[in-house]
Amino acid sequence: MDSPWNELTLAFSRTSMFPFFDIAHYLVSVMALKRQPGAAAMAWKNPLSSWFTAMLHCFGGGILSCILLAEPPLRFLANNTNILLASSIWYITFFCPCDLVSQGYSFLPVQLLAAGMKEVTRTWKIVGGVTHANSYYKNGWIVMIAIGWARGAGGSIITNFEQLVKGGWKPEADEWLKMSYPAKVTLLGSVIFTFQQTKHLAISRHNLMFLYTMFLVATKITMMITETAIMPFAPFEDTLSRMLFGWQQQFSSCEKKTETKSSFNGTGSSTSKPIAVASDKVKKKHTKKTE
Amino acid sequence: MDSPWNELTLAFSRTSMFPFFDIAHYLVSVMALKRQPGAAAMAWKNPLSSWFTAMLHCFGGGILSCILLAEPPLRFLANNTNILLASSIWYITFFCPCDLVSQGYSFLPVQLLAAGMKEVTRTWKIVGGVTHANSYYKNGWIVMIAIGWARGAGGSIITNFEQLVKGGWKPEADEWLKMSYPAKVTLLGSVIFTFQQTKHLAISRHNLMFLYTMFLVATKITMMITETAIMPFAPFEDTLSRMLFGWQQQFSSCEKKTETKSSFNGTGSSTSKPIAVASDKVKKKHTKKTE
Amino acid sequence: MDSPWNELTLAFSRTSMFPFFDIAHYLVSVMALKRQPGAAAMAWKNPLSSWFTAMLHCFGGGILSCILLAEPPLRFLANNTNILLASSIWYITFFCPCDLVSQGYSFLPVQLLAAGMKEVTRTWKIVGGVTHANSYYKNGWIVMIAIGWARGAGGSIITNFEQLVKGGWKPEADEWLKMSYPAKVTLLGSVIFTFQQTKHLAISRHNLMFLYTMFLVATKITMMITETAIMPFAPFEDTLSRMLFGWQQQFSSCEKKTETKSSFNGTGSSTSKPIAVASDKVKKKHTKKTE
Repeated sequence: MDSPWNELTLAFSRTSMFPFFDIAHYLVSVMALKRQPGAAAMAWKNPLSSWFTAMLHCFGGGILSCILLAEPPLRFLANNTNILLASSIWYITFFCPCDLVSQGYSFLPVQLLAAGMKEVTRTWKIVGGVTHANSYYKNGWIVMIAIGWARGAGGSIITNFEQLVKGGWKPEADEWLKMSYPAKVTLLGSVIFTFQQTKHLAISRHNLMFLYTMFLVATKITMMITETAIMPFAPFEDTLSRMLFGWQQQFSSCEKKTETKSSFNGTGSSTSKPIAVASDKVKKKHTKKTE
Repeated sequence: MDSPWNELTLAFSRTSMFPFFDIAHYLVSVMALKRQPGAAAMAWKNPLSSWFTAMLHCFGGGILSCILLAEPPLRFLANNTNILLASSIWYITFFCPCDLVSQGYSFLPVQLLAAGMKEVTRTWKIVGGVTHANSYYKNGWIVMIAIGWARGAGGSIITNFEQLVKGGWKPEADEWLKMSYPAKVTLLGSVIFTFQQTKHLAISRHNLMFLYTMFLVATKITMMITETAIMPFAPFEDTLSRMLFGWQQQFSSCEKKTETKSSFNGTGSSTSKPIAVASDKVKKKHTKKTE
Repeated sequence: MDSPWNELTLAFSRTSMFPFFDIAHYLVSVMALKRQPGAAAMAWKNPLSSWFTAMLHCFGGGILSCILLAEPPLRFLANNTNILLASSIWYITFFCPCDLVSQGYSFLPVQLLAAGMKEVTRTWKIVGGVTHANSYYKNGWIVMIAIGWARGAGGSIITNFEQLVKGGWKPEADEWLKMSYPAKVTLLGSVIFTFQQTKHLAISRHNLMFLYTMFLVATKITMMITETAIMPFAPFEDTLSRMLFGWQQQFSSCEKKTETKSSFNGTGSSTSKPIAVASDKVKKKHTKKTE
């Protein structure tokens, strides 16, 4: 129990996010916002709206989990210190003369460091969400998974929704459907930490936090260096989906139509055309079945 | 008090919804989801999103009432048993090989049985919502009506909203405006049970539940067999709207101004076309009435 | 302390909003709703939806603040008296024969009186919101500002959102971004009353309420009479934005890069056109400044 490994992970799990890791998280979020086309011009035209959007990018996960648990979404505003910290980072990022921050951030090592530290905060958010949900619902393990997921990766949902309200984002079913890599890895972590919380995993939490964080940082940095969206889950997902939803043997006999249907739908995104196609397919299928 | 009728209704009002009626409700909801064009293909492409949509179809009313009362919308996830039940029904409905479930459901008697049992759950939801709202606001009878209505028929609103966020549904003012038959009958039931709750109706609750449920099931099955959207409320609505909003005599004389005014106003905006048409319709109706 | 001025403001600050000022607020809100193209025709086609929209117009600010503080958004429905008052005003406004109300309201003095009384209610709402938020978060002055702002000017946000759901309103980034004059003045008042609440302003609340209300009423009536959207904040905003976000000297020299960069980024996305225009405008402005 007193092995150096244990001490290391224990000390790691007690690291405080507050000053530095939060700064890295805010910096990455605000830079991602500034990368959006026109964000800089909007910041000059209407600083208040830009500040609000930046806050949504920084605190979106917490806001979403508050909404899901019927806690005040404004609670994040009550934490004056973090608000002022994020606001100052938003300020220097957007309004620093000759935007030195963007130029400094454009160096790869800085980006790697900031992204790595942001991934560390993701672990803390997931753990916080799972334990928080556990305090509400003792054995509601589905709720724990959902809240951990919302805290860790809910920011994108909130910002998408804000884009929708602003009208700057025309949603498409496919965009909404496909999960991004952070969403997937956060869901995995949320499931793992929920099982650990409900004593279904025989591993101490600080060890799990250390290992999961290392995995997060390693994959993130690898993806940033090799600039390729590597999907470590692809084979796992394939096997799982084949196990759960596949049954290729029996299924391939009478389900090929649906497969072709899906590929058809994939081509057209404007939802009106594929729907007609789909309904036609369905008709054909039934007629074939009746024949 | 011990009449067989009373015993029957009392026993009926004590029926537990849990295993069988809930199953029927989930089955009808999931089948309605699967009937949507492209839903099956989406389930193959992204099972998680399809599962989420199915849960919204199954628990939408409860979620809406939770939102309106500022209770955690995730509470429905804490009821693991119902979640697993609905999930398994969603699973066998979408991924059963050669989808046997759909074929079995395509037989009319099965549909009638499932639809009838679903209507029974509607009564239980309305009563639950009214009593739940009554525990919050003692004499807030408007809140009781709203919550009973939301629990009973709020699922469609939630799913419409989800469609809107997904972008699969382009809303139109008229769609949103016109109430469906279930919404109307649920509103009626919510009003009735609210009056019974506030002791304005001299009828015991179990009798009222029995009668209202019988009415629901009878109308629903009649509509399904005769495949015609019968509107038992149409004459009632006409008389009511004529009493409240009609005053045709004075109105037809000097309302044309406002009609023309409204169409004038309409010219400026993007929604001018449908409005003008609507006002024309209204005009025609009134001219016919005056003839 | 017993100066007549003090007594006047004290008595003013103790004025009850209930019967008359609330009526004026409901009247102005419902008339603004009726002015919308097609609202009258919709009221005839679907009175329930029109009533719901009218309630949103009348109680929108309170609903928004309830949502932000995770209080039941339906609470406003529990206040039966105000609901019935607003409903009756909605009723006589829309369904009065030969709509006498609209014709009576079309006289300028009536409009001025109603608008002035509505502005008085704005002050009461801001103060109520600030004190209410203060009871939640002792030193969360950002929350206090937000809640005061939401109560005072949140109705427009709620109604915009309702329009979005109905599909009657196609949002554009610019519409969402630019704040209306009431939003600005409400934000100013919310900040002022928050500072007074946190003892940073050495002025008694009733004096502040009197002065702020006088300012509101005066500006509103001036804007209505001279039919010009006067912006008393324009110079203040210019100086502030130049102080905070300006730094024109360094900025105009090296900001063109980011402008062009942003327009480059813009080319990919759907919102590239307006952004490019905006950045062009900004460029022109800066070039003019540099000349």
